[in-house]
Amino acid sequence: MSTRLTPEAINAFFAEHFPQISPGRDFVVEETGPMSARMRLVYSERRLRPGGTISGPSMFELADLALYAAILAELRVGDDPAKANHSRGALAVTTNLNINFLRKPEPGDLIADARLMKIGARLIVGEAWLHADGATDAVAHATGTYSVPPPKSDLIG
Amino acid sequence: MSTRLTPEAINAFFAEHFPQISPGRDFVVEETGPMSARMRLVYSERRLRPGGTISGPSMFELADLALYAAILAELRVGDDPAKANHSRGALAVTTNLNINFLRKPEPGDLIADARLMKIGARLIVGEAWLHADGATDAVAHATGTYSVPPPKSDLIG
Amino acid sequence: MSTRLTPEAINAFFAEHFPQISPGRDFVVEETGPMSARMRLVYSERRLRPGGTISGPSMFELADLALYAAILAELRVGDDPAKANHSRGALAVTTNLNINFLRKPEPGDLIADARLMKIGARLIVGEAWLHADGATDAVAHATGTYSVPPPKSDLIG
Amino acid sequence: MSTRLTPEAINAFFAEHFPQISPGRDFVVEETGPMSARMRLVYSERRLRPGGTISGPSMFELADLALYAAILAELRVGDDPAKANHSRGALAVTTNLNINFLRKPEPGDLIADARLMKIGARLIVGEAWLHADGATDAVAHATGTYSVPPPKSDLIG
Repeated sequence: MSTRLTPEAINAFFAEHFPQISPGRDFVVEETGPMSARMRLVYSERRLRPGGTISGPSMFELADLALYAAILAELRVGDDPAKANHSRGALAVTTNLNINFLRKPEPGDLIADARLMKIGARLIVGEAWLHADGATDAVAHATGTYSVPPPKSDLIG
Repeated sequence: MSTRLTPEAINAFFAEHFPQISPGRDFVVEETGPMSARMRLVYSERRLRPGGTISGPSMFELADLALYAAILAELRVGDDPAKANHSRGALAVTTNLNINFLRKPEPGDLIADARLMKIGARLIVGEAWLHADGATDAVAHATGTYSVPPPKSDLIG
Repeated sequence: MSTRLTPEAINAFFAEHFPQISPGRDFVVEETGPMSARMRLVYSERRLRPGGTISGPSMFELADLALYAAILAELRVGDDPAKANHSRGALAVTTNLNINFLRKPEPGDLIADARLMKIGARLIVGEAWLHADGATDAVAHATGTYSVPPPKSDLIG
Repeated sequence: MSTRLTPEAINAFFAEHFPQISPGRDFVVEETGPMSARMRLVYSERRLRPGGTISGPSMFELADLALYAAILAELRVGDDPAKANHSRGALAVTTNLNINFLRKPEPGDLIADARLMKIGARLIVGEAWLHADGATDAVAHATGTYSVPPPKSDLIG
């Protein structure tokens, strides 16, 4: 029986703990899988930059959140697998993120496919590919490193 | 006579071309110097993340804008040095940004000190140090690469 | 008719232009494909570091050369597709490389699978996955940016 | 009384534990200071690449070793401050390194000035500036992250 967190559980976690990022439900987890997650950035005008392209910080945030969602999904523990905040992953902190901007995205939703490369005792490394919804060419690629509390830690009760 | 762009000219350029980022004047250029610029992120609650810290994407955006401001200031050309949009720098595009998050910033303004390492014919590389206003320890460090049109280009009339 | 460079052509190019790196044929291109190349680092004791692991700089070099090989293969031009030095790719210069070390490789050959993400007029971005020969878990992942002369350039005669 | 490791102690440590990198004493620590170290890459022909420039992997290795030297110097512990291998720093492992190549160095010695940005309980982050001996313009800039055993660990006896 898999206890991987569902997209719904992670979206509920974001709504509770990151209210600032989703006044209009900008960022939505759509899928979780083995060491992976897919997240959508719902387009809105405030994401635009000169030239009619999506802003770099919006892409950074999408990549970072998609990786965080993949970590949350994978590191679920505790009695109730639906609750993200019972996860060590909930305490993950971004320590490094490197992003390459490849093409200018047109106005519209963006999708990030995040995949974890390594889940260590204290460091998790992953990558995220970003593309326009319905397109295949990547608009950006990011790799990120996250620090997590050690397993069996008492930190999270 | 120096024709480096003033902070005022760059802030006016941002207000005109990046209205999305400064509804409440979040990002303000405070100084420009030789291959350098200082930028302030004015604190607001929506910058917060769980634990009462400033969000990573906000720090990414501050670093990116500070580097862009340093490029604008340095690449001014044309008759009127006050006008940033006469600059090749106005067409600079971020191609890579690598950021290390070092410490969690408390709620409050953040300062970014950006410095350009190299101004090539087509690529500009720089770094930005971020710290809390009034503090000395860095909360983040970023290096970024920007693609610019070649000198003597007719692209910008 | 494909004019992609063969592994043999690229290995001959390396032997001629990079004699320093292959006194014992350390680095060997094994495959080239669409926007991709596979390269082998032939193990030798001087690659070791304390703890019996392959050195970081060796992995950096393998990733960098594999990406360069993929660029050479893709940017072949001219009458004789076998000749790498007729390619714009031969003038490619690494401008940025970011590498994450994921696991310590045991002594033995390493394989790098390089894949190009974007081939622009002046910048090429790609990634390389490194793993031990015969294994599947990655030991390192790198992303690199390369500057190339513009198409139609007369630089390379 | 400072117990920071001396350059001599670190060079002795390298000679003992990294014999592969210094058959001809290629890499030499010249200074150590507060959270910093200076290291020299002694030029030899095998460092060359086409165009008469120092190879990228050589610069990567110099940056990585200089940061490692700064960590060794800073994390000295135990009865005998001269002995690097009594240090937690001796067990530091590079987890990420990002390097920007800025200018092509002429044949000749290279200097790396490494400075640590953060010394955490488990992660150390630093930067290294590389320049030709006697010159001021940087030829490369790197940021690196290192994983170290926690303080008070019994791992190193």
